[in-house]
Amino acid sequence: MSIDVETLRPLFAPRSIAIVGASATPGKIGAAPLSFLQKGEFAGAIYPVSSGKTEIAGLKAFSSVLEIDAPIDMAIFAVPASQAPIALSECLKKGVRAGVMFTSGFAELGEEGARIQARMAEDARRGGMRLLGPNCLGIANYRERVFASFSPVFARASGTTGHMALVSQSGAFGGYAATAAQDLGVALNYWMTTGNEADVDLADGLAFLAEDPQTRVILTYMEGCRNGPKLCEALERCRQNRKPVVMLKVGRTEVGAEAASSHTASLAGSDNIYGAIFRQYDVYRAETIDEWFDVGRAAANGRYPASAKTALVTVSGGVGVFMADEAVDRGLDVAPLDEASQAAIKKLVPFAGTRNPIDVTGQVVADIGLFEKTIETVTACDYASIVAFHGALARNPVPGQKLLSAWSEVCARHPDKVVAITGASTRELDDAHASNGCLTFQDPGRAVRAIGALHRLREAFDRPRPAFSPEMARQTLPRGTLSEVESLDALAAAGIPTVPHRVVTSAEEAARAARDLGYPVVLKIVSPDILHKSDIGGVALSLTSEDEVRDAFDRIMAKARAAAPNARLDGCLVATMIRGGVEVILGVQSDPTFGPMVMFGLGGVLVEVLHDVSFRAAPFDESEARRMIAETKAALVLKGTRGAPAGDLEALARTLSRLAVFASRHADQIKSIDINPVLVRPAGQGVVALDAVLIGASD
Amino acid sequence: MSIDVETLRPLFAPRSIAIVGASATPGKIGAAPLSFLQKGEFAGAIYPVSSGKTEIAGLKAFSSVLEIDAPIDMAIFAVPASQAPIALSECLKKGVRAGVMFTSGFAELGEEGARIQARMAEDARRGGMRLLGPNCLGIANYRERVFASFSPVFARASGTTGHMALVSQSGAFGGYAATAAQDLGVALNYWMTTGNEADVDLADGLAFLAEDPQTRVILTYMEGCRNGPKLCEALERCRQNRKPVVMLKVGRTEVGAEAASSHTASLAGSDNIYGAIFRQYDVYRAETIDEWFDVGRAAANGRYPASAKTALVTVSGGVGVFMADEAVDRGLDVAPLDEASQAAIKKLVPFAGTRNPIDVTGQVVADIGLFEKTIETVTACDYASIVAFHGALARNPVPGQKLLSAWSEVCARHPDKVVAITGASTRELDDAHASNGCLTFQDPGRAVRAIGALHRLREAFDRPRPAFSPEMARQTLPRGTLSEVESLDALAAAGIPTVPHRVVTSAEEAARAARDLGYPVVLKIVSPDILHKSDIGGVALSLTSEDEVRDAFDRIMAKARAAAPNARLDGCLVATMIRGGVEVILGVQSDPTFGPMVMFGLGGVLVEVLHDVSFRAAPFDESEARRMIAETKAALVLKGTRGAPAGDLEALARTLSRLAVFASRHADQIKSIDINPVLVRPAGQGVVALDAVLIGASD
Repeated sequence: MSIDVETLRPLFAPRSIAIVGASATPGKIGAAPLSFLQKGEFAGAIYPVSSGKTEIAGLKAFSSVLEIDAPIDMAIFAVPASQAPIALSECLKKGVRAGVMFTSGFAELGEEGARIQARMAEDARRGGMRLLGPNCLGIANYRERVFASFSPVFARASGTTGHMALVSQSGAFGGYAATAAQDLGVALNYWMTTGNEADVDLADGLAFLAEDPQTRVILTYMEGCRNGPKLCEALERCRQNRKPVVMLKVGRTEVGAEAASSHTASLAGSDNIYGAIFRQYDVYRAETIDEWFDVGRAAANGRYPASAKTALVTVSGGVGVFMADEAVDRGLDVAPLDEASQAAIKKLVPFAGTRNPIDVTGQVVADIGLFEKTIETVTACDYASIVAFHGALARNPVPGQKLLSAWSEVCARHPDKVVAITGASTRELDDAHASNGCLTFQDPGRAVRAIGALHRLREAFDRPRPAFSPEMARQTLPRGTLSEVESLDALAAAGIPTVPHRVVTSAEEAARAARDLGYPVVLKIVSPDILHKSDIGGVALSLTSEDEVRDAFDRIMAKARAAAPNARLDGCLVATMIRGGVEVILGVQSDPTFGPMVMFGLGGVLVEVLHDVSFRAAPFDESEARRMIAETKAALVLKGTRGAPAGDLEALARTLSRLAVFASRHADQIKSIDINPVLVRPAGQGVVALDAVLIGASD
Repeated sequence: MSIDVETLRPLFAPRSIAIVGASATPGKIGAAPLSFLQKGEFAGAIYPVSSGKTEIAGLKAFSSVLEIDAPIDMAIFAVPASQAPIALSECLKKGVRAGVMFTSGFAELGEEGARIQARMAEDARRGGMRLLGPNCLGIANYRERVFASFSPVFARASGTTGHMALVSQSGAFGGYAATAAQDLGVALNYWMTTGNEADVDLADGLAFLAEDPQTRVILTYMEGCRNGPKLCEALERCRQNRKPVVMLKVGRTEVGAEAASSHTASLAGSDNIYGAIFRQYDVYRAETIDEWFDVGRAAANGRYPASAKTALVTVSGGVGVFMADEAVDRGLDVAPLDEASQAAIKKLVPFAGTRNPIDVTGQVVADIGLFEKTIETVTACDYASIVAFHGALARNPVPGQKLLSAWSEVCARHPDKVVAITGASTRELDDAHASNGCLTFQDPGRAVRAIGALHRLREAFDRPRPAFSPEMARQTLPRGTLSEVESLDALAAAGIPTVPHRVVTSAEEAARAARDLGYPVVLKIVSPDILHKSDIGGVALSLTSEDEVRDAFDRIMAKARAAAPNARLDGCLVATMIRGGVEVILGVQSDPTFGPMVMFGLGGVLVEVLHDVSFRAAPFDESEARRMIAETKAALVLKGTRGAPAGDLEALARTLSRLAVFASRHADQIKSIDINPVLVRPAGQGVVALDAVLIGASD
C-alpha cells in the first residue's frame, strides 16, 4: 500500500503538456490553462488539442494527442463529460503519464457518473497514468511555471516562489486560498486541488510534497478521506521529513458534515476520529483561516525554536501583558531575564520593565538607540524565540530602517533563533524583514500563537519514533459476542492484566476456587443469554468465606433459573475482588476508514456526561499511549487528587499499547472491545481489567 | 456611588482647551496636542500656556492659565512631574472643569508618587475638575476634532467618524489599536486612555459612552479595576442602552497578571472573577485582537439579527462547509431553505447545493445573473442573517459592481437583516458595501463568528432585567467560624432549604428527635473543637430505629471524649437522612474588588479536579442563577443522565438567588460560606442543604 511518489512527478513537474479541449476564447475552461502557461512562461512544450483547429493562441494545434510527434508528460482534460473517456483512452495510447481532468459530471452526480469515473480510473491505472480529478481545479507548480488549472487566480500568478505548498480537496476553496495568499504576500511553490479523487488523492499530494526538497510546509484543506491507512502513511512521511501538515479540516459539526457529504459524495468518518489521527501524526489543526496561514508562513520560514524559552520585547506594557498571556496559553516559557541583563537594561531605560516581557516604554520613541541596545542584550541570552512589538514606530522611515538593520543583524548572528516582529508596518518593510529570516505580523497575539505552533511542531518532530515491533501471537477468536470469560481470556492471552478468575459449576468448586484465588471474591452468573447480571440477582460481591461462597453460588443459580428459565447457564465466575484505584474504560472500535481505533477514558461522569475520551489508530507504542492518556481529563485524576495516590500510568500505557497491538493483529476478527472497568492501582501496583466484552466480526 | 456622566462632558467634548507646557518643538509632548488640534481643525479655542512665550505655533501664548481671559473647559498637562501639582492648582483656581495629565512619574514609581497623585486627585475633586491620568496618552473626540493626546497616531487622524469608541487603560496599546483601526479602515468616534486612573477611570468612560447617542459599541482594553461596584454600574448602563462592551482583558494568566501588576501597580483580582462579571453583565470578551475589531465593526453597523436563522450563500461548496461548521459552533441556526425556494434555485443552477449552505457553484462565474436571482430568493425567506462568500469574483469590476448593487438592494429592502459579504475584495468595494449597511470580511469564518457575536449580544440585550427586589430581613451573625448548626440555621432563616435537624444532649433526646424527624436519620457530633467529624468516629449514618439512635449517640459521645479529651462537646446533631439526587456545592467568597461572589459547582471530580465552577456577584435573581448553572458541566449532569431523572433546576436557581441576596445583605458580616453538599432532588422535589460552614467577618 506504499505510495510511489515517483509516479506523481509528471503531475507535479511535467516537461510537456497537452491541453485536450484547448481554446483561445476567453472564459472557456480550455482557454485558461493555455493562457496561464503562456503568460507564466512555462519552459516546456505546450500542445493544444482541439479537433478542426490548426493553430490556437499562436501555437500549432492538433486534432488528437496521437498526432503529436513527441513524448507528453501531462494531459489536461478540458472537455465535456461525454468526451472525457475517449480523450483519456487516446492519451493512454499515447503513453501520457499524468492527467488533469477539470471535467465535472461524474461521481458527484450519482451512481452512473461514479461508474464511468471508476472505469476511467481503472483504465488510467492500467495504462500507467496518474489521474488528478475529475471535477477538480487542477495543479500548479510555481517554480517551474506549471499552471494546469482554470482558476482565475493564475491570471495574476506571482513570479516569486516560496516554500509553502497548498493541497485542497475543494477547488473553489483552493482558488480562494491562493488569492488570499497573494493578498497576504505569501509565496506558494505548489498548489493542488484533488476534486473527486478517482485516482490521485490528498494523501498522494502530501506524500509527494513530503519528499520535495523545496517544500517546508503543506497547507491542507480536507473534507474527508476514503483510504485511512494511505493517509496515515502520507502523514507519517511528512512527519519523518519534518514537513508540518497545517490542516483545515471541515465538516466538524453535524450540519457541516452533512453539507460536505452532499457536496463531495460519501466521504465518511466522524470528526473525532480525524482529530485523533491528526494528534497521532502531529498534524497541526488550524481553527481559523488566519491561523492556517500564520502557522504556514511561520513554518515556511524554516526556523524552529530549540526550546520554549521566549523573550517578549515591547514598547507598550499593555501589549507585553497581552503577549505574556498568549505565550503561556500556547505552552511557551516566558522565563525572566537574568539579573545582569535586567540591570543593563535598567541602566539604559530607568522605567523599563525588565523581567520579561521587557517593556522599553515610550522612551524609545525619542531615542531608538536604546531599543537597539536592548535588543542586543536580550538576544545575547538563551531565548529560543524573541517576539518584538514595535507599536507604530516602524511606520516612521528612520526608526523603521534602524530596527530593520538591528533585527537583520540578530537573525544573521543567531540563525538558531526565531524572531518575530510585530506592530504596524509596511509591506516593503515586512518583505525586507522576511528576506532576513524574520517573521512579521501586525498582531502581536498572532505572532505569539505562531511561535507556540512552531514550538509544538519542533517537539513533535524531535519525539523518538516508535521503536517497538508490534509482534503478537495470533489467536483464533470466536465469532459474535464473546462471554465475559472468553473476552477476559482472549485479552489475558494478549498480555493484558485481567482479574484472576475461574468458571465453576458447583458450590463446592466455587468454594475451592475462592480458596485458591484468595478472599474477598465476587461471583457472577455465566450465561450467554443473560446480559444484565445484576438485574436478576446474578452477582454477589465481597464474599469472605467458603460458606458465603457456597451460599452465593446456590442463590445465584436459583435466581437465574427463576428469572430466565430458558437461559443456558454455564455456572458462575469466581473472581478476586480487587479494590483501590481509579476506574477507567478501554475500548476498541473498528472504523470503516481507519480500521481499529483504541479508546480511553475515565469511568463515570467524565465519559458518560462529558464524553471526555481519546482515540488512536492501532497499533501504537507506550509513549503514544501516554500522549493519549494525557489528552483526557482522566490524566488529572490519575495524577492523584485530594490525598489519593497517583495511578500506575506506566502499566496503563503498556496495557493500552498491548490492546492496540492485539486489535491490530486481529483487525479482521474484531468488531469492538469494551473493557469496563480497568482498575488503575497506585503507581507500581499495575492495572487490572475487571470486566470485558469482545464482539467478533460478524462474518 | 452613581456615576455623574455630566461632569465628564468637558473631558469628552471641551469647547476650549488650554495646553499647559505647550511647545512648538516637534517631538516634545507639549507640541503634539497643539499640532493635532490645529491640523485636525478643532473649532474651539486653543490656549498654549508656557512661561516666557508670547506666541506658540501662531497662537497667542500665556505664562499661566490665570492670565487667560475666557472660561476654559479642558486643560492638558504636558509638564514634568515636579510642576504638575502647581499647574493643577492654577487650573483649579481658574475653574477648569476637565484635566488631561500626560505627565508620568507618580503611582507607577512607588509610594511617594502615589501620595502626590492621591493629593492631586483630591484637589481636583474638591475643585470640581475631572482629571484623566496622570501617566496617560489622553483622549480624542473625532467628531469634534478634539485630539488631546500626544500619541503619534493623531498626526494622521482620519476625517471620518464612526460609531465605535475605544477605551484603553494602556496608552501604548490604545495608540496601537487606533493605528490598527486606521489600517483596517475602521472609523472611531472617541478614543480614551486612562493611565493611572487617579480620578477618571475605565468605568467613567464606559458610563459616558453608554449615554452618548453617537456611540454604538465600545472596544475596551482592560488590565484590572479597583472599584468593582462602579465598573458593574457602568457595564449595566451599557447593557441597558444596548451598547456592547467588547472587551480585551489581559492578565489572564499568572505570568500575564504579574506583568500587569508590575506595569500598572496593584490592580488586584483573579481573572476568574472578571470573567464572571463579564458574563453577568453580558460583556463580549474577545480572545484575539482580530475578534475584538471584528465584533466591534459588526456592532458599529447597528444591525442585529432578530433570530439565529442564518443563510450561507457561497460560490464554493468547501467554503460552505467551513461556514456551516463555524455557524453551528457560534450558536447560529443553519436552517434549511424551504422546498419551494430550493426548487427555484435548482431550476436556475441545476448542480447547486440548495439546502443551506446554498452553493451556487462556479457556474455563476460565467453568469452573474444566476447569483443575483439566488440572492433574491434567499433574502425573501425568513433568515435573520445572510453570509455570502463571493470567492474572488468581486475582484473583477463587472461582477463586483453587479454584486454591490444586488446586495445594496437587499440591505435597503430588508433593514432588519444582517448581511455579511466575504471573499477577496477591494477597499473601495468594501467601503461601498459598508455605506449600504453591509458588513464585509475577507475571511468567511470571521464573518460567521461576528454574526454569532451579534446574535449573542442581541439575545443579551433582549433578556428581561431582574425584576426582583432583593429585600431580606437582616440577621446578626456570630463572628468567626460558625458551627454546622449555626450555619444551617442562618441559611434556613434566609429561606434556603436545609435538612431538618435538631441538636440533642442525651440518647433519649436523640431518640425523640429521630422519631419526630422521621427515619432514617444521621447523627453527628457537635463541637466547636472537632473539625473532621468522620475521622474520630463522630458520624453515624442510616439509623432506622430508636435503639440504633440511642446506641449511636452513646458511641459517638464516647469516641469524641476519647479522641479529643479537651474538646467542648455540645451534644449531637440529629438530622433526617436524605438520599437520591445530585450533590452540588454552593459557596460565597468575599472579593476585595467586587464584594460577595457566589460560587456554584458539581461535587466530586468536576469541582475538585476540573475546577468546573461558575461565579456571580451578589445579589442576582433566579434567571441569572439559571445562566450561572448553565455555564458549568453540572448542567449536563442535572439534565439527567443514564436514566437518572432531571434535577429540580428551578429550586436550585431559587436557592442560589436567595444565597446571593443573603450574602449581599450581610456582606459586611460574611467572609465566606461553603454549603457542601446541597442535594438537588428530582424535578418538583426541591433541593436541600445537608452541611454548611459560614465564616463571619473577622472584625
